[in-house]
Amino acid sequence: MPNPIEINQIKLTGGYLFEKESLVRAVTLPALYKSYEKTGRINAFKLSWRRGESGEPHIFWDSDVAKWIEGAAYTLQSGSDPELEGVIDGLIDDMEKGQTAEGYFNTYYLMVKRTDRFTVRNDHELYCAGHLMEAAVAYYRATGKRKMLDIMCRYADYIEKIFTDNGRRPDFMTPGHEEIELALVRLYEATGERRYLDLSKFFVDRRGISEDERCFNGWYGKEYAQDHLPVREQKTAEGHAVRALYLYAGMADMARLFDDDELRASCEKLFDDIINKKMHVTGGLGGSYHGESFSYDYDLPNELAYTETCASIAFIFFAQRMFLLTGEAKYMDALELMLYNTVPAGLSVSGDRFFYTNPLEMHPERRDYFLLRGKGQYAPEYERPDDFGCSCCPPNIIRMFSSIKKYMYHTGPGRIYVSLYGSSVFEHDAMMIEQVTDYPWSGAVNITVKLKESVKKTICFRAPSWCEDPRLTINGIETPAARADGYIKLERMWNDGDAVGLYFDMRVVELRAHPLVHYNANRIAVKRGPVVFCAESADNGSHIKSIIVKKKTDYRVSYRQDLLGGVAVIDCDAAVPLPDDNELYRTAAHTYVDKTLRLIPYSVWANRGRGEMSVWLLKETRVSE
Amino acid sequence: MPNPIEINQIKLTGGYLFEKESLVRAVTLPALYKSYEKTGRINAFKLSWRRGESGEPHIFWDSDVAKWIEGAAYTLQSGSDPELEGVIDGLIDDMEKGQTAEGYFNTYYLMVKRTDRFTVRNDHELYCAGHLMEAAVAYYRATGKRKMLDIMCRYADYIEKIFTDNGRRPDFMTPGHEEIELALVRLYEATGERRYLDLSKFFVDRRGISEDERCFNGWYGKEYAQDHLPVREQKTAEGHAVRALYLYAGMADMARLFDDDELRASCEKLFDDIINKKMHVTGGLGGSYHGESFSYDYDLPNELAYTETCASIAFIFFAQRMFLLTGEAKYMDALELMLYNTVPAGLSVSGDRFFYTNPLEMHPERRDYFLLRGKGQYAPEYERPDDFGCSCCPPNIIRMFSSIKKYMYHTGPGRIYVSLYGSSVFEHDAMMIEQVTDYPWSGAVNITVKLKESVKKTICFRAPSWCEDPRLTINGIETPAARADGYIKLERMWNDGDAVGLYFDMRVVELRAHPLVHYNANRIAVKRGPVVFCAESADNGSHIKSIIVKKKTDYRVSYRQDLLGGVAVIDCDAAVPLPDDNELYRTAAHTYVDKTLRLIPYSVWANRGRGEMSVWLLKETRVSE
Repeated sequence: MPNPIEINQIKLTGGYLFEKESLVRAVTLPALYKSYEKTGRINAFKLSWRRGESGEPHIFWDSDVAKWIEGAAYTLQSGSDPELEGVIDGLIDDMEKGQTAEGYFNTYYLMVKRTDRFTVRNDHELYCAGHLMEAAVAYYRATGKRKMLDIMCRYADYIEKIFTDNGRRPDFMTPGHEEIELALVRLYEATGERRYLDLSKFFVDRRGISEDERCFNGWYGKEYAQDHLPVREQKTAEGHAVRALYLYAGMADMARLFDDDELRASCEKLFDDIINKKMHVTGGLGGSYHGESFSYDYDLPNELAYTETCASIAFIFFAQRMFLLTGEAKYMDALELMLYNTVPAGLSVSGDRFFYTNPLEMHPERRDYFLLRGKGQYAPEYERPDDFGCSCCPPNIIRMFSSIKKYMYHTGPGRIYVSLYGSSVFEHDAMMIEQVTDYPWSGAVNITVKLKESVKKTICFRAPSWCEDPRLTINGIETPAARADGYIKLERMWNDGDAVGLYFDMRVVELRAHPLVHYNANRIAVKRGPVVFCAESADNGSHIKSIIVKKKTDYRVSYRQDLLGGVAVIDCDAAVPLPDDNELYRTAAHTYVDKTLRLIPYSVWANRGRGEMSVWLLKETRVSE
Repeated sequence: MPNPIEINQIKLTGGYLFEKESLVRAVTLPALYKSYEKTGRINAFKLSWRRGESGEPHIFWDSDVAKWIEGAAYTLQSGSDPELEGVIDGLIDDMEKGQTAEGYFNTYYLMVKRTDRFTVRNDHELYCAGHLMEAAVAYYRATGKRKMLDIMCRYADYIEKIFTDNGRRPDFMTPGHEEIELALVRLYEATGERRYLDLSKFFVDRRGISEDERCFNGWYGKEYAQDHLPVREQKTAEGHAVRALYLYAGMADMARLFDDDELRASCEKLFDDIINKKMHVTGGLGGSYHGESFSYDYDLPNELAYTETCASIAFIFFAQRMFLLTGEAKYMDALELMLYNTVPAGLSVSGDRFFYTNPLEMHPERRDYFLLRGKGQYAPEYERPDDFGCSCCPPNIIRMFSSIKKYMYHTGPGRIYVSLYGSSVFEHDAMMIEQVTDYPWSGAVNITVKLKESVKKTICFRAPSWCEDPRLTINGIETPAARADGYIKLERMWNDGDAVGLYFDMRVVELRAHPLVHYNANRIAVKRGPVVFCAESADNGSHIKSIIVKKKTDYRVSYRQDLLGGVAVIDCDAAVPLPDDNELYRTAAHTYVDKTLRLIPYSVWANRGRGEMSVWLLKETRVSE
């Protein structure tokens, strides 16, 4: 089975992922730090806030800063930055001073609430602790400095003592917002301390035995926090999407590390349930804004989709762990969908503005109207703000793109998996693999293997599921590209300078949704390679949802360096109804006029001001002669 | 200008409106009384409830019973029922005993709240008072008994004293839920007491001068209760739809009775705003379930439409008053749309179950899911319950259908307006007009005039706006049917036995929505005469919204006496996509198979169990050769 690599085994040299990595390092990371300074999040670590002052810490502030540290640590692992390291060291010093003698650390509880530690399940204490653990591990790996790791080990020890106490009520044995499950695994992997793995298993195993019917946010059911069934009986994705996916990631870790077939089967079923019934075509997850939740089967609204950026990032964590568990490419295929669509949509082209939710359709009137009239109606944003009160997504985007390299390659005994494509140099076991490609704008990937001594090895290249007929050349010679588990597996003696050419045909496809997704009836989504496209007002004027793509159209692809940071755009033939009168209802058919419809990647929508947007487009369909 | 008639000037003799009138009298009226007995609403009038007992009165209970009395009074006006009259007399005796010395009567305030009379604007006191006034007037007209009228005059006198007090804050000069405005006009008309008219004008004129920004339900804006502008500056329909429409009805009364052109202009603009931008094709009003409100222009969601039954009934009150003000048929056209669609949809075929909201599209999974998971998400009902905690709609349906006759005819000097068609006999001024028709299932109306002495008179027959080419015969001779203000006006010497034949071609039409109503892009609604049709699972299986009506189809109409109480049904040619695999997204186009799509009147949907429904149907549209 595949193993993860270290971030510093690989260097991005150009192209899409390189640009995201660079943008996040140069712009997003410092911008978010400034925002966290301004709101008081950074200062909170000094525990100097006093009641009545502005900047009162919130229950999940620690996690925001923790994710920022984790993301910063990944950038340090890719390249040193003494100033940045100094900032983080300062925060860690604050933590050390603030940590209680028992090992507890939570700025909200230490300054604001002060009582009832670990008894209010929805207060995010274990969630914050988990994110701090992940940050500690990342910072330790990046710098070799142990201080934060030690702090978090002391905290983990304290948590273990509290939660595994025999007198504790089963209702309070699991976190309200999952995250610590996968974090403890990372702590175990960094320290070798088996107790942390066992504590993670404790949290996973005890889930779903609570007797508290409506413990979360007043009235949400147990499903909201996946507390409705023991995990091995959970077969359908339920409740708050981010909580669910962090849990599933932890479950996949448990299945792998404890060789637990029952848990693996649950994970597989949960994954399939999401992919087959609950995932937007963009990779957006969480169909219902109500409870930020998975909805019922096929309930995938476009305008009112919740599809939180964090949910797609959490899915990536889950998917990669499923790949570690199974070696199957379908998990990396799904991961790739998130990576090129919903996740980058969470970040502006400028790098300093963010989307929390990622609707597939925008009618800006809704937001304008309900902002004016009252706050009770959900209305998605059409412009990325520079931060949120609930700032979970921005630092998640940082840690995602600053660690993106670790999803590109995996290794195993005598084996290397190449799962994502991007110009880069990867080193492993005296072998260097160089990729040159314009992926995802081009499906051509040129790979050169460099080594001192020839070696027998299997290199597995993922052939994306959207590509029907991958083509392969070895040293310039066309070679049959047999797929197994979604990978083209080349087992051979590799010589220095061996060149592998991969070509994944990026023909534009029209995707149709299952007929039960009634929102998308008679509509198509346009996709090219892993990239989903959409139509925006900036290119196409208003009433986007009424434009009909012609039955027969070619899709004319061009790469526009000058547009939205450099993207492929697609033009196709469509027709638009004329709003030639003001009648609300009319008996005459609309008059349609021809129109070239311009599509842009979904991930870069909403970078050109207020306007409509739709991923799903009406398609001319012939059902009679 | 037209004047209203009395209910007892007309007798329904058969057909649609007769059946509704009969059903409501025979089934709905006693069924709702039983429900009100059971919940404690009836007993509340005895003021004997004590704290701690079950059946605690609610702030709008009085209005429920008042509307029931009003509806019952209309049935008494059409035909005596001593037992029913006895029940109402008992309630009136209770009221008389309960009314305070000052003249106050409100069961909630007298028993439950006891303090802060007339200071909490959203507590529905004036709303309840208004409905009791309307009931008192109706009962007085039906029976000649003055007791309830006198009680309500004393109450109105007390209200006048309190509200016109010079020391009263402007914020508290108008009701939170309008209704008393139009009720005081009826009290004035019944008693001739001018002060009641002036008090109504006081409430109307003082609207929109409150300084209280968020006075209703915590956070709704002033628009919620039409308190954002003085009424003469209101040009767009805003806020809670029922409140708005009761107010507009009162405004139309003021415009007419005070000959107020400015107010008339506002009323006309408000009406046009609704008709042109905020009305569902079924006549449903209130696009947003949030705040039960009008939404922004063209925001007419189908599944999540609020479209309260009461809103369409309130619109009928407004529309009739606009007709009294202008004599223009367009108001009766709009009234007719409500009458044959959203209003009857509020009542089951059995007569004892009700819809509060009237969505244009149903996916029953939504309700099943959210009932299971929590109550925070709005999900429309797919089965009519037998009553609601907020029982405003059921008695409104009763008073609507038991007084429907008064909307059929209006009179003026030397003039009779025939606005609605249904088999009936109308008497006025020594003239009798007999209608025989199967309207709305047939567009043929046969009218016979009976009189002792020939008389010169103008009889105006409404030619519905949906009919392009009305045909007219007089004594069997085809005659040009010139329309003026939407009426065919026959000014002539009428002789006994004169026969007028009207024929309104009920060809089936496909209606298209304005392109900005994005919910209905590339969809049609099927309408025949005034009746809007829909497709249901009971006839057509599942995924109704994916079925495509063929470009060329005939619409085959048949009348089915055995179905749903007797309705016209329409069959047309369509195609349905096969759910031939379980893929959520697929690149292959769907396979469509031919299907005869069966449509039933929207008003009788949801009488055959749980299933999907849609008014708006996909339509095959050619935009390329």
